[in-house]
Amino acid sequence: MSLATLDVSQHPNLRTASTTLFEAKAKKQVTFEAIAKEIGRDEVAVAALFYGQAKASPDDIKNLAKYFDIDHGTLESQMSGFPDRGKSIEMPPREPLIYRLYEIVQNYGYAYKAVLNEKFGDGIMSAISFSTHVEKEVDKDGNTWVNIKLRGKWLPYTRF
Amino acid sequence: MSLATLDVSQHPNLRTASTTLFEAKAKKQVTFEAIAKEIGRDEVAVAALFYGQAKASPDDIKNLAKYFDIDHGTLESQMSGFPDRGKSIEMPPREPLIYRLYEIVQNYGYAYKAVLNEKFGDGIMSAISFSTHVEKEVDKDGNTWVNIKLRGKWLPYTRF
Amino acid sequence: MSLATLDVSQHPNLRTASTTLFEAKAKKQVTFEAIAKEIGRDEVAVAALFYGQAKASPDDIKNLAKYFDIDHGTLESQMSGFPDRGKSIEMPPREPLIYRLYEIVQNYGYAYKAVLNEKFGDGIMSAISFSTHVEKEVDKDGNTWVNIKLRGKWLPYTRF
Amino acid sequence: MSLATLDVSQHPNLRTASTTLFEAKAKKQVTFEAIAKEIGRDEVAVAALFYGQAKASPDDIKNLAKYFDIDHGTLESQMSGFPDRGKSIEMPPREPLIYRLYEIVQNYGYAYKAVLNEKFGDGIMSAISFSTHVEKEVDKDGNTWVNIKLRGKWLPYTRF
Amino acid sequence: MSLATLDVSQHPNLRTASTTLFEAKAKKQVTFEAIAKEIGRDEVAVAALFYGQAKASPDDIKNLAKYFDIDHGTLESQMSGFPDRGKSIEMPPREPLIYRLYEIVQNYGYAYKAVLNEKFGDGIMSAISFSTHVEKEVDKDGNTWVNIKLRGKWLPYTRF
Amino acid sequence: MSLATLDVSQHPNLRTASTTLFEAKAKKQVTFEAIAKEIGRDEVAVAALFYGQAKASPDDIKNLAKYFDIDHGTLESQMSGFPDRGKSIEMPPREPLIYRLYEIVQNYGYAYKAVLNEKFGDGIMSAISFSTHVEKEVDKDGNTWVNIKLRGKWLPYTRF
Amino acid sequence: MSLATLDVSQHPNLRTASTTLFEAKAKKQVTFEAIAKEIGRDEVAVAALFYGQAKASPDDIKNLAKYFDIDHGTLESQMSGFPDRGKSIEMPPREPLIYRLYEIVQNYGYAYKAVLNEKFGDGIMSAISFSTHVEKEVDKDGNTWVNIKLRGKWLPYTRF
Amino acid sequence: MSLATLDVSQHPNLRTASTTLFEAKAKKQVTFEAIAKEIGRDEVAVAALFYGQAKASPDDIKNLAKYFDIDHGTLESQMSGFPDRGKSIEMPPREPLIYRLYEIVQNYGYAYKAVLNEKFGDGIMSAISFSTHVEKEVDKDGNTWVNIKLRGKWLPYTRF
Amino acid sequence: MSLATLDVSQHPNLRTASTTLFEAKAKKQVTFEAIAKEIGRDEVAVAALFYGQAKASPDDIKNLAKYFDIDHGTLESQMSGFPDRGKSIEMPPREPLIYRLYEIVQNYGYAYKAVLNEKFGDGIMSAISFSTHVEKEVDKDGNTWVNIKLRGKWLPYTRF
Amino acid sequence: MSLATLDVSQHPNLRTASTTLFEAKAKKQVTFEAIAKEIGRDEVAVAALFYGQAKASPDDIKNLAKYFDIDHGTLESQMSGFPDRGKSIEMPPREPLIYRLYEIVQNYGYAYKAVLNEKFGDGIMSAISFSTHVEKEVDKDGNTWVNIKLRGKWLPYTRF
Repeated sequence: MSLATLDVSQHPNLRTASTTLFEAKAKKQVTFEAIAKEIGRDEVAVAALFYGQAKASPDDIKNLAKYFDIDHGTLESQMSGFPDRGKSIEMPPREPLIYRLYEIVQNYGYAYKAVLNEKFGDGIMSAISFSTHVEKEVDKDGNTWVNIKLRGKWLPYTRF
Repeated sequence: MSLATLDVSQHPNLRTASTTLFEAKAKKQVTFEAIAKEIGRDEVAVAALFYGQAKASPDDIKNLAKYFDIDHGTLESQMSGFPDRGKSIEMPPREPLIYRLYEIVQNYGYAYKAVLNEKFGDGIMSAISFSTHVEKEVDKDGNTWVNIKLRGKWLPYTRF
Repeated sequence: MSLATLDVSQHPNLRTASTTLFEAKAKKQVTFEAIAKEIGRDEVAVAALFYGQAKASPDDIKNLAKYFDIDHGTLESQMSGFPDRGKSIEMPPREPLIYRLYEIVQNYGYAYKAVLNEKFGDGIMSAISFSTHVEKEVDKDGNTWVNIKLRGKWLPYTRF
Repeated sequence: MSLATLDVSQHPNLRTASTTLFEAKAKKQVTFEAIAKEIGRDEVAVAALFYGQAKASPDDIKNLAKYFDIDHGTLESQMSGFPDRGKSIEMPPREPLIYRLYEIVQNYGYAYKAVLNEKFGDGIMSAISFSTHVEKEVDKDGNTWVNIKLRGKWLPYTRF
Repeated sequence: MSLATLDVSQHPNLRTASTTLFEAKAKKQVTFEAIAKEIGRDEVAVAALFYGQAKASPDDIKNLAKYFDIDHGTLESQMSGFPDRGKSIEMPPREPLIYRLYEIVQNYGYAYKAVLNEKFGDGIMSAISFSTHVEKEVDKDGNTWVNIKLRGKWLPYTRF
Repeated sequence: MSLATLDVSQHPNLRTASTTLFEAKAKKQVTFEAIAKEIGRDEVAVAALFYGQAKASPDDIKNLAKYFDIDHGTLESQMSGFPDRGKSIEMPPREPLIYRLYEIVQNYGYAYKAVLNEKFGDGIMSAISFSTHVEKEVDKDGNTWVNIKLRGKWLPYTRF
Repeated sequence: MSLATLDVSQHPNLRTASTTLFEAKAKKQVTFEAIAKEIGRDEVAVAALFYGQAKASPDDIKNLAKYFDIDHGTLESQMSGFPDRGKSIEMPPREPLIYRLYEIVQNYGYAYKAVLNEKFGDGIMSAISFSTHVEKEVDKDGNTWVNIKLRGKWLPYTRF
Repeated sequence: MSLATLDVSQHPNLRTASTTLFEAKAKKQVTFEAIAKEIGRDEVAVAALFYGQAKASPDDIKNLAKYFDIDHGTLESQMSGFPDRGKSIEMPPREPLIYRLYEIVQNYGYAYKAVLNEKFGDGIMSAISFSTHVEKEVDKDGNTWVNIKLRGKWLPYTRF
Repeated sequence: MSLATLDVSQHPNLRTASTTLFEAKAKKQVTFEAIAKEIGRDEVAVAALFYGQAKASPDDIKNLAKYFDIDHGTLESQMSGFPDRGKSIEMPPREPLIYRLYEIVQNYGYAYKAVLNEKFGDGIMSAISFSTHVEKEVDKDGNTWVNIKLRGKWLPYTRF
Repeated sequence: MSLATLDVSQHPNLRTASTTLFEAKAKKQVTFEAIAKEIGRDEVAVAALFYGQAKASPDDIKNLAKYFDIDHGTLESQMSGFPDRGKSIEMPPREPLIYRLYEIVQNYGYAYKAVLNEKFGDGIMSAISFSTHVEKEVDKDGNTWVNIKLRGKWLPYTRF
C-alpha cells in the first residue's frame, strides 16, 4: 500500500504545519482513514487539515500531537491560526485527478445551476456550511467506482 | 414557481439547439424534472442536453420533439452532431452558484487526491464514465440542504 | 441632473430585460432612487435588477411593468428566469469607480480576514444572505462622502 | 479564542516588519482589537499595518515597540518606509472570505456605479481618503451578522 | 493634413455617441484642436469625450450639436449618461503609441512612487481630480518633441 | 520626514545593486532629491537608477560610491552592466500610486493618440529618447498638486 | 499560384479598408509583389497597409484606387485616418508561421539585447524608424531559405 | 565600454552554467564579439549559449574552459546536457529592447505571413534550421542603425 | 451512426469555407472517412481542411466541389487562400476529448524531450513536415483503443 | 553522445527524487533507453518517472536503487508517494520541442475530435489508461523522422 506524502519543493506555499504533519504521517506510515478514525473526523477533512485548508480545533491539535508524538506546543503554534485557504493549488489544476473535478464543474456548471434554481429558487449551495464524503464501490462486474457526496446548505439570496 | 430560462445574448456561443429547446421549455412552462421524467433521463443530464453538454440519443430527440411539439427534422439536424463541450462557460466561473462548486475543487482538490490515492491507488475518477444526481433535503430543524452525488469509474494509470 | 443609462454596444452580454428597463427609465427620466421608492426595494437592489444581477419577484415585475408602462407579458418573459450573475463586468474592472472598490478588496482583504476571524471565528461573511446600502454625507466642512454599508450573515465552516 | 497569525511561507512577499509584528502578536497572544485600543487606531487599520498595507506614524512605531517589547530602532528601520501596497494578495483572491468581498464588487459593481453617479454626479469614491470599520451584530433570532462600513470622499472628475 | 477617425469595426464596444461624433468630425474635416477651441475645453478632453472617456456637460452637448449640425435630442440621449470608462482599450495596449506611455509606467512606476512619497508623504496623485495637456516643441536643432503634462491633486491616505 | 526604502523580500527580482544602494541611502538618511543634487541628475532618474531601470555612467558610479562611502569596485561590478528593465514591477500594478498612472494610460490612451496623430502625424512619442520631471505645486487655496512632465522625441514611422 | 486572401469572419476587428482592399486584390488576382511594384513600396509594407498596420500616403491611396479601380473617395475615407495598430493579431500568435517569429524573440531576446548593448550601448533598436525586407534564397543544394532583414535606428536612452 | 553582465537574482531560472560563464566573462572583461572570434561562432549564438538557449559542442566547451580558465570537468557537467529553452524570459517581454522585437512580430506578423505564403507557398520559416546575425551601420548623416538578419529554412506543410 | 457537424454560433471565427463544407457534409450524410477515400487524403487531413487548418490543392477543391455538388468558383474563392491556422480553438482546450491530448503534452512533454534529445540530438520534431493517422483497435477482451500516430521530420538546430 | 540532464534551478518545483535520479544518471552516464531495458519499462515512462510524472512500483524503486547504487530507503521515501503531476511545465510550453506537440493539439484538435467521434461515438481517448512509444526512422533518402505512438482506451460518455 502506498501513502499520500508531501514533497515541500512541490508546494512551497503551504504552511509549516503541513510539513510537520506529513512528515509525521510518513514516519508512522498511516493512512488518512486511520487518522480520521483516531481523531473522529472525516478523512477528507483530515487531508484538508494536512494541506492547511481546514481549521483544527484545540482537541484536534491535542489528538494529532499525541497520536503522532509531536510536541503539543509546536503543533499548536503552527496550527492554531486560521487557515489561509487556496494556497495549495493553482487554477486551472494541472494534476489530472483534480482536473477531472474541475472539468465536471466546467461541463455541468450551468446544468447544476438550472436544476438547483428550479428545485430551490434563487440562491447557492454553500461551500462553507458544507461537508463531503468519499466512498469506494465495486459493482457486480468487478468495476471500481468512486462516489463523492457533496452536502451544502441552501442559501437563498436576501431580498433588499 | 420560476423556471430556468436562456437569454441568448448572455450565451452567444451555445449551439442553435439550445435556443430551440429553451424557447420550447419556456413556452410549455415545464421544469427539467418534468422533462426528465418524460424522457427517462436524470434532470442534470437533461439540463446538460439543453446547454449542449451532453449527447442526445435518437430516441431523446424523438421524445423531445414530440413532447415540445418541435419539428423532428429540425431538432435532429440541430442535435444529432457531437456536443462541443465547454462552450457554456468561462473559467473561473463568475456565477456565484457555479463558483461555489469551483471553490470546492480549489479548496479540497488535494485532499480528494490524497484520500482517493490512498483508497484506490494511482489513477483518477473518470468525468466521462460518470453520472451525477442532485437531491433536496430538509433537515429536522427545517433547514434546506443540497446533496450532489458524483459517481465516476476509477481509472488506474497504465503501467508501460 | 444626469441619469444612469445603458449603451448596449458597451454591454453586449446583458440579458434583454436590461435593454427594456434602461430604455424605459431613460424615457420616463427617473432615478433609481425614485424607482426604489415605487417598488419598495433598495436602490442598489433596483440597479442590480436592471443589470440582471438580482431576481425580480412576480410583484416586482408587475410594479415595474405598470410604472414604466411596459407590456406585462413581455417583461415577465424577460425577467422571470433566474439571474445569470457576473455577465455585467470583466475583472479586474476598468471603470475607475468600480476599480476603487476592487482596490479596497485588494488592499484590505487580508486585514478584513484577520479581524473577522478573530471576532467571529473560522468562516466567511455571506455575499448571498447579504444586503447593501449607500448613503450620502456632507460633513461640516462641506466635503461630500460616500458611505457604503455591507451586511452579510456570518457563516461558520461546518466541522466534518 | 483563536488569533490571526502569519505563516511566512504562505506570504513570501510581505515586508520584514510583518514577520516581526505577527511573531510579537503570537507571543503576546493579543487580538487586533486589543492592539487597536492600545495604539488608538481602528482594528482594520492595525491589521493593515501588520500586512504592510498602511503607513505607521512615528508614534505608532513607538507604541507598537513598547507594547510588544520590540527594539525601537529595529522596528523603525522596518516600518518607517512607505508601504508598497498590494503585495499581500493575488487577484482573484483564492481565500473564500476575501473572495466573497471580491464577488460583491463583481456582482454589484455596476449597480453601485449607477446609484453613485445619480446621487453624486460623475466621479468616484476615494479608496485613499477612505476609512472602514467592522462590526458584529447578533439579531433577535440569534443569527450573527457582519457589518462592514466603507466611507470614502467623493471625488468629482475635473473638467478641463 | 490627416485627421483622427474611428473605424467602428475596430472598436465595437464604444458607445453610440462615438460613432455619431467621429462621423460628424470626418464630414466637417476638423481637428480636435479646432473643436476644443470651439467648445472651450482642452483637446485631450475633447478626444476623451469622443471616445466616451469623459462626461459632457449640457453646454458641451449643445455646442457640439450646433457645431456639427447634429440633432440636439439625439446627441443628448446618446451623451447625457455617465461615461463607462475603460471600454476603448485592452491592456496591455497593442497600439505602439499608447504602449510607449504604458512602458513609461512600467519602467518608471516605482521611481515615481519613491520620489512622490518623499516629496508629498503617503498618498497618491489623483487620476480623477486631474487634467492633462499636450504640447509640441521644436528644438533649436529642428528636432520635434512631445510634451505631456499631467496634473493631479495629491491625496494623502486617511489615518483611521 | 520619511524616506523611500526597499524591502528586498518584496522585490526579489531586483539586481544586487538595488540592495546596496537602498541600504546606503537608509543609513545616510537622504532623499532622492539630495542625491540628485549631489550627482547632477534628475531625482526620478536617480530613483530609476536605484530600482535598476536606468544606466549609471562611470561618473555616476564614482559619485555614488564616494557619497555613500561604498567600495568603488563593488559598486562598479554591480552597476556597470546594462539595466535589465521591467523587473521592478508586475502589470497591472497593484500599488495604488502606480495604478493611477496606469489608469491615466487606460483612460486617455486613445485620446492622446488621436491628438498626437493630428499634431505630429503618424508616429510615436519615444520612451527612450525621453525625460521626465516631477514638481510640487500648492495652489492659492492651499491644495497640493503633483505635476509630472513627460518629454519624448517624436518618431515618425519610416516609409518603406 | 495561390494568393493571400482575407476571410473577414476570421479577422472581425480589422478596419473596413482591409475588406475593400483584399476583395479588390482577389478580384484582380495580383500578388503583393505586383502591387508593391505598382505603387513603389516594399511588399511587406503593402501587406501591412492591407492589414491596417501602416499609413497610406495620399499618393498611395490614389495609386491603389486607380490600380484596383476603386472609387477614390471611398478608399480615401476608409484609409486616410491613422492606423490603429495591433488589431490584426492576438498574442501569443496561434498561426504557426507567425509563432516561429515570436519564438525567435522568445529564444534569442536576451542574446540580441546583450550583443546590441555591447555594440551600441544602452538603448533600443527602433520599431518605428524601421524597415524590413524579405528575400527568397535557393542554395546550391536546392534548399529554399527565407531571409528577413530588419533595419531600425538605434536610439540611445536620454540621460536626465 | 560597458559589458553585458548577468545578475542572477534577476534570472533565477537560468541554468548554473549561465552564472559560471557570465562571472568568467565579467572577470576577463571581454565582449561577446571577442568570445565569438575565439570559439568560431556568431556572437548572437555565443550570447545564446551564455543564456542557455543554444547547445555547446564538446569543442565549444573545451574552448570556453580554456579561454576563461574554468575547470573543464565542471563546465562540461554544467553544459553538456540539452538546453531547456525559454527559461530566460517571460512573454510579453518587459525589457524595452526585446519588446521592440516583439512589437515587430505583433505589427508585421500577418504581413510577413501574406508575403511569405505568396512567395513560398503554404509553410513556415524554420526557427530551428535557422541562423541570425547582427550588424552595425552608420549612414552618411552619421545616424546609427541596427541590421538584424534572420535566415531560416522554408518548410512546406506535408500533404497527407 | 452520428456525423460530426459544425454549429457556426460555436465557432464564429472559422472561415466561410467551413460553413459551406460542413453544410454540404450534413446534407450528403457522409463521414470524413468516406470523403477521405473520395479525394485521396487522410481523414484527419480532411477534417483539418474542413476546420480551415490545412491547405486544399486545386484538385482537392475540384474533387470536393464535384463530390458535394458545390459551385466550383464559390468553393475556390473560399478555399484558395492560405489557411490562417489556430482560429478553431482557444487554449487550454475546454472540450474534454481535446483536453486529454493537451494533458498528454502537459504530463509527458519533458519526458518526450529527454528521450528525443538522447535519440536524435538537439532539435525538434517538425509539426509542419508532419503527418498523423488515427486507427481503431479492439483488443482480445473486447476493449476499444484509439491509436494515434504522429510522424514528423527531425530538425536539428543549425550551428552558427 | 549527449545525455538529458536536469538543472534544478530551472525546475524548482520538481520533487526531490528528480534531483536524486538525474544526478545518479549523470554520474553513471546512461541513457533513458538503457535504464528502460534494465527495469523493463518504456523509455518515455522512465523519463516520466524521473520528472515525477509517473508512479514507481516497489520493484521499480528496488531496481533503480540497485542500478544506480542509491540507498534503497532514501529512494523509497522520495518515490513511494503518489506523483503530483503537472509540476514539470508551465503551459503554453516555451521549450520549442514541446511547443511543437502543443501546436499539433492546437492545429489538429478539432480534426481529431471529429474523426474520433465518427469512428468511436461520443467519448474521449483516455490519457490515463494510456501508453506511448517513440521510434526513430531513417527513410530511404536518409532523412530522419520521429514516430510517436499514442494508445489510449476509448471511454464512451455514460448515459444517465
